[in-house]
Amino acid sequence: MTKGEETRQRIVELAAPLFNQRGYAGCSVADIMEATGLEKGGIYRYFDSKEELAAEAFKFSVAKIRKLRTDDLDNIPGAVEKLRYVMDRFVSEPSPLKGGCPLMNTAIDADDGNAALRDLVQQAFADWRRRITTIVRQGIRDGEISKSCDPMELADTLIASLEGALMLTRLDGNKRALKHVRHSMDLLLSAYTG
Amino acid sequence: MTKGEETRQRIVELAAPLFNQRGYAGCSVADIMEATGLEKGGIYRYFDSKEELAAEAFKFSVAKIRKLRTDDLDNIPGAVEKLRYVMDRFVSEPSPLKGGCPLMNTAIDADDGNAALRDLVQQAFADWRRRITTIVRQGIRDGEISKSCDPMELADTLIASLEGALMLTRLDGNKRALKHVRHSMDLLLSAYTG
Ligand SMILES: [Mg+2]
Ligand SMILES: [Mg+2]
Repeated sequence: MTKGEETRQRIVELAAPLFNQRGYAGCSVADIMEATGLEKGGIYRYFDSKEELAAEAFKFSVAKIRKLRTDDLDNIPGAVEKLRYVMDRFVSEPSPLKGGCPLMNTAIDADDGNAALRDLVQQAFADWRRRITTIVRQGIRDGEISKSCDPMELADTLIASLEGALMLTRLDGNKRALKHVRHSMDLLLSAYTG
Repeated sequence: MTKGEETRQRIVELAAPLFNQRGYAGCSVADIMEATGLEKGGIYRYFDSKEELAAEAFKFSVAKIRKLRTDDLDNIPGAVEKLRYVMDRFVSEPSPLKGGCPLMNTAIDADDGNAALRDLVQQAFADWRRRITTIVRQGIRDGEISKSCDPMELADTLIASLEGALMLTRLDGNKRALKHVRHSMDLLLSAYTG
């Protein structure tokens, strides 16, 4: 990495939690100047606009959270164990990034607004759904999961309930909602694996 | 209502969808001036601050959505039918207010920020949880729902999964995720009522 690339990367890494906590409108370029110690010109040297910086910060956040949530997944044997692993990781490490899940936060923030960010969130959820449906399909082929299970229905349910529980957990200041949803999803899974 | 009370109420009603779509930082007093056709002084005559107006707008939104989601609930016989009704209403009328669910939006917006708004969201979710746990407890007493069901666990699961599905539904631009979660929650319920 050149010195310029390093500076650019440092701006992205410092901006990511600010956008994640405050939202796009709530995070100003002045906030990023304060966090990085750079002048406005020092930031706009690397990014054409606040939009571009926010998009890069979101991509950085998604890559970080994706790694944390699915690292080691390939080493887990069996579809049901893989799904349990994904849920357990979500409960044990709900917000590696300050401010909670960047996918949910940016979805809520951008669903009526910023089109570029919305596209990126759609891609991130599509990727997450694809990874779960791939596991479920393998489980159906291997006879671990019932053929009555619709892979996309299960993926939507796991993602929606975990994200919703994270929202409640951050509001409550404790993990009760996440633990409750984790247990309910085990019950649901057992309806397909019983 | 006096003329002044009517004007105040009109400001609240017009501000509510703006805060809901754009978030607290993303909705400026200038936006509210534009929507109401009032000067800044005409707005601040009724509210001490943007904080106060946002709080009133949130309370208005919550009352509206609560009525829509639970109207007629007392006329539905049986706990399981009541729970199904709550879910069906959520799926059929996911966002009566432009911008989606004000509880989830404000939770995400205020969980690291605005303490007054956060308190109001906590109260709104506490109220929703209380209404669901009351139904579940009645169902357990009546023998409709298994004693193995933890009322708060089921309430957290229904709320988290519906809210998470609404987030996906607004991002997707279709109701697939809500319908998927609705079906999964029926399966989960049948594990407690089978
Ligand atoms: Mg939104
Ligand atoms: Mg937040």
